[in-house]
Amino acid sequence: MIDSGDRIAVLAHGKFPDRAKTATGVLRYGDYDVAVVLDRDRAGQRVADLRADLPDAPIVASMADAPAVDALVIGIAPIGGGFDDSWRSDVRTAIERGCDVVAGLHYFLADDTEFADLAAEHGVSLHDVRRPPEDLGVATGRADEVDAEVVLTVGTDCSTGKMTTTFELARAARERGIDAGVVPTGQTGILIEGRGVAVDRVVADFAAGAVERMVTGFGADHDVLFVEGQGSLVHPAYSGVTLSILHGAAPDALVLCHAAGREVIHGYEDTRIPPVGQVAKLYEDVAAPVGASEVVAGALNTASIDPADDARAALSAYAADLGVPAADPVRVGPDPILDALALEG
Amino acid sequence: MIDSGDRIAVLAHGKFPDRAKTATGVLRYGDYDVAVVLDRDRAGQRVADLRADLPDAPIVASMADAPAVDALVIGIAPIGGGFDDSWRSDVRTAIERGCDVVAGLHYFLADDTEFADLAAEHGVSLHDVRRPPEDLGVATGRADEVDAEVVLTVGTDCSTGKMTTTFELARAARERGIDAGVVPTGQTGILIEGRGVAVDRVVADFAAGAVERMVTGFGADHDVLFVEGQGSLVHPAYSGVTLSILHGAAPDALVLCHAAGREVIHGYEDTRIPPVGQVAKLYEDVAAPVGASEVVAGALNTASIDPADDARAALSAYAADLGVPAADPVRVGPDPILDALALEG
Repeated sequence: MIDSGDRIAVLAHGKFPDRAKTATGVLRYGDYDVAVVLDRDRAGQRVADLRADLPDAPIVASMADAPAVDALVIGIAPIGGGFDDSWRSDVRTAIERGCDVVAGLHYFLADDTEFADLAAEHGVSLHDVRRPPEDLGVATGRADEVDAEVVLTVGTDCSTGKMTTTFELARAARERGIDAGVVPTGQTGILIEGRGVAVDRVVADFAAGAVERMVTGFGADHDVLFVEGQGSLVHPAYSGVTLSILHGAAPDALVLCHAAGREVIHGYEDTRIPPVGQVAKLYEDVAAPVGASEVVAGALNTASIDPADDARAALSAYAADLGVPAADPVRVGPDPILDALALEG
Repeated sequence: MIDSGDRIAVLAHGKFPDRAKTATGVLRYGDYDVAVVLDRDRAGQRVADLRADLPDAPIVASMADAPAVDALVIGIAPIGGGFDDSWRSDVRTAIERGCDVVAGLHYFLADDTEFADLAAEHGVSLHDVRRPPEDLGVATGRADEVDAEVVLTVGTDCSTGKMTTTFELARAARERGIDAGVVPTGQTGILIEGRGVAVDRVVADFAAGAVERMVTGFGADHDVLFVEGQGSLVHPAYSGVTLSILHGAAPDALVLCHAAGREVIHGYEDTRIPPVGQVAKLYEDVAAPVGASEVVAGALNTASIDPADDARAALSAYAADLGVPAADPVRVGPDPILDALALEG
């Protein structure tokens, strides 16, 4: 859908950088040349003015002001995953200039008559990365036969850093000379990697099968696979997706991701997150009948904690609760986790 | 889709009765007047000649030989859930005679141009019960607020008797004067009840939400709800659906269904079924963070065991392993399970 090295524009109107998780993920982890960011509220600024941890790029008000690119990526999603009609002229301009358009919305661009007709006229592609492949099937139970070492990030809740941890680990592993691949299971991961399946959008019967197919397929090309987990085994709404990924991936090792200080499931305040050690044991107990796996490290998001001393104390407590090493892969880097995984390239 | 008391014909060509689970389920548990069974291999026989436990009906070779009915129900499914073209003339005849047609196939009759056009012409409906509702959403975590007592059947594997146990328990509860409803989650259950959602066919993110909606909706009208479980928490392919139902239903009590003598997951011979007591504990441990629930009884399918003394011994062993009462709801009846549930009408 997007090839490594492609020049892209990333649309993030009104939300760049802090409410544009997809845009910043693509900037931080994508193997693309981000030529420009579209945010009409920040036009004239640069990425480097706002975030030191991201590669620099100019910010412009619209696609009409953007330099020539291969593709326009929609880098934000309103609640509900709809298409904001104020983006329509940017998408139209991109198509008319011969750019592909890539989106991870629930609303499919290819089902929009205006965009579909215009894309056909200009010979460009519209990629809706949340649309599941047509040919999925049930899992066969063979993911454990893949030669690659499979590491799955799991969580105590949604939005605990599973995607970030996955990509930080893959990057750090590659820096150590390990041939590491990523199995993306959500829209941002798919946009970063240019492949993958949004597992939450798949027919429930095929969810484990979709993950198994990626693990066996991508695993043939890498020594280590980092599989992006979703949701949580203790989440009232999304636990089914979580378990489908756990059983479908048949991982060799688990990394448990948690947001420091979070005590209840976000948006489900009646559901308390059990002590993290119990959550880890639950993942292991549920994995075991299909394929034994252990939590070998923890990832803690300490972004809400200041000063750094307090974050270090939270990390120590988290590691002690889990009985395994832990790190904040963004604040202190993923090396302690990678060491605990004891991967061989 | 089918109303209580409707006169129906049930298509079961070549498979009645022993390989026609849907047809026999509708005969045994449906609140319909089954006027005729279609099985070209058994034409001229009667249901009572073949199975003493089912209401009697004549068997004919085709819809052309059937008496007047309100609806034709497709009561069998080939592997893969496709439509067998040898049934086409029966469906055509039914539509031309003004009958609705109801099917639980993966292949949707309403998407078949010939059937759709013919149905429009004759003013009849085509109901594909596996097609999910359009307006599903994510679970809100409120199923535990329903006043009705919620009982969920869970299993060590697929095809362990969850659907049968669900309907046997509902029937026995009603005989005791309890206002009991059923929440069907698979095609046969939906055909029996005339309502429900095939949870395995729902977008994975909405699976728990679909169950929650039925539990809160149907629960308002009954004192007790028996929820039909699917798959197994230890199944490599279907565990996600199983867990979505467990968390989406937030049951007060669980009944663990097992097929006597089965040691590995059917079709996944590398996956051993853990000792049944461990499986029960796993269900309880995974339920707890979202809504505490306990396995209060076991249902054992002893159909493969002969003589009856051996079946009784297997039942005793199963109950001892689980530490709760157990019964074979078909062979000895569901009363011991119902007693263990201690329901109040």
